[in-house]
Amino acid sequence: MSHIVITGANGFVGRALVRRLQGESRHCLTLIDQAFDAGSRAPGTRQIKGSFGDAAVLDAALQQPADIVFHLASVPGSLAEREHALGYQVNLQATLALAHRLAGQGRQLRPAPRLVFASSVAVYGPLDGETVHEDQPPRPAISYGAHKLMAEIELADLSRRGELDAVSLRLPGIVARPPTESGHGSAFMSLVMHRLAAGEAYVCPVSPHATAWWMSLPCCVDNLLHAASMSTVGAPSSRSWQLPVLHLSMEQLLDALVQRYGERCRQLLSHAPEERIEALFGRYPALHTPAALEAGFRHDGDAANLIRQALAPAS
Amino acid sequence: MSHIVITGANGFVGRALVRRLQGESRHCLTLIDQAFDAGSRAPGTRQIKGSFGDAAVLDAALQQPADIVFHLASVPGSLAEREHALGYQVNLQATLALAHRLAGQGRQLRPAPRLVFASSVAVYGPLDGETVHEDQPPRPAISYGAHKLMAEIELADLSRRGELDAVSLRLPGIVARPPTESGHGSAFMSLVMHRLAAGEAYVCPVSPHATAWWMSLPCCVDNLLHAASMSTVGAPSSRSWQLPVLHLSMEQLLDALVQRYGERCRQLLSHAPEERIEALFGRYPALHTPAALEAGFRHDGDAANLIRQALAPAS
Repeated sequence: MSHIVITGANGFVGRALVRRLQGESRHCLTLIDQAFDAGSRAPGTRQIKGSFGDAAVLDAALQQPADIVFHLASVPGSLAEREHALGYQVNLQATLALAHRLAGQGRQLRPAPRLVFASSVAVYGPLDGETVHEDQPPRPAISYGAHKLMAEIELADLSRRGELDAVSLRLPGIVARPPTESGHGSAFMSLVMHRLAAGEAYVCPVSPHATAWWMSLPCCVDNLLHAASMSTVGAPSSRSWQLPVLHLSMEQLLDALVQRYGERCRQLLSHAPEERIEALFGRYPALHTPAALEAGFRHDGDAANLIRQALAPAS
Repeated sequence: MSHIVITGANGFVGRALVRRLQGESRHCLTLIDQAFDAGSRAPGTRQIKGSFGDAAVLDAALQQPADIVFHLASVPGSLAEREHALGYQVNLQATLALAHRLAGQGRQLRPAPRLVFASSVAVYGPLDGETVHEDQPPRPAISYGAHKLMAEIELADLSRRGELDAVSLRLPGIVARPPTESGHGSAFMSLVMHRLAAGEAYVCPVSPHATAWWMSLPCCVDNLLHAASMSTVGAPSSRSWQLPVLHLSMEQLLDALVQRYGERCRQLLSHAPEERIEALFGRYPALHTPAALEAGFRHDGDAANLIRQALAPAS
């Protein structure tokens, strides 16, 4: 039976991952987060309340060595920009501490633990041109992206040393986040879906021709699980994969919402573009990811499926 | 009068930089290193003995705010690979602590302090092909290079926030290090010069056609001083410059040594290539650095001048 540890286990992605894993009896799960919903603990699952950056929390989580760690916890980009010291502490320093803790286990016990790290497309910074390739050199333009990139580099180095077996996934905007979640500059990507599906008006902070990279929550979980079980023999030395994405403009997304929820969606949506948000989240070019596809990672297929999966119950 | 702080001030590059700066009365210098030579303290210069990673040492050094910090101290690559925790602590963590300390000053007092960071060509990892360009994506293959790259990213991010004014220079092999210095896998680049100049035999751990990137110590100091005074308006967001280098094979270097020290050099030099050293330090392709040249950085010009400068007295 393998021991799986999940940080940020009560977050948007974490909860969906936990739901998927709890169905399988061959795992025992240790969940770490600042808080858990009352009555959410399932049999065979440990919940540890606290920060993954707290050594005592890691002591408790790793009493039994971890086979697989999903590291999902982070301070989101917009919040990390405002609360810079917090983002530095959590997104960089606590992540480094977790990685070194696991590397310490990896020096004692083989095989080294698999660490699946939720990195971000924020590592790239501004992307020019019609199309970018998955080997696009990263030039982060916000601290969140800088710290994700620095963490990727350390995980790759510890993996090179054989003390860790890391897979870093650069996640695009995952939809549809609960409308109450804040701190993400890309919140509009989820809100537009929730509002139009519910028949409510929405003023979008990017223009109709703004393009973004999209992935549904179930598709994201599929990719995380694949990252946990894939072979890393022959993996690139960076241990980083840019996940395949759907590249859609707001207009294309609207067309798909109209197909599913009817013509009224066109009246419900209006635009009041904010330059900062458009620049950070609305100018993504097309993306080619042949190596990630070859490695078994997937996107949602098309806009209709993206919406269906993103708004599926309990996702 | 500007306050200049130098870490690693008693190292190979540090001593040469200090000699150059001590001649100028418009600076006051604070030197940090683990040890200083007895009787080496010049008037107007403070020596602080200890690690720059020690908060008390930084407290003492930064009682008076720093205008310029040259951060030269590091655990060399070969040693950092063996003593991994030490390299992680000094090359990454202590460097981050220094940067955040200076950023704290930069948030209080404008202009933000200039930090000249001695990064390394070790950030690149294996370089394929005939020629590489200064925007070559880094893929570090040793922890030393990974930590230098991570530090560059953090310095760029703090500079973007306006709290620091960083310039990271990717240094090639600087010659000629004292024959007693250890911990550098590239030590052969200096030893071959010292030994042949002294008429002593030398068994070189790379082959005659091995190519490396070279820079003399005086040229390196010129570039560090330029980095301290240049404008960073319009600088690349990475704040990193690959210094121009001389790209020379061991054969080309030998020819230049023969020109200066005579034909006997050919008999004194033999080769016993070690694959690991050849792979890390002997396969550098040609390098184009148009942006660094445009920004005012320089290499030694030619092999004859490299040797003359590298072996000049007191350099």
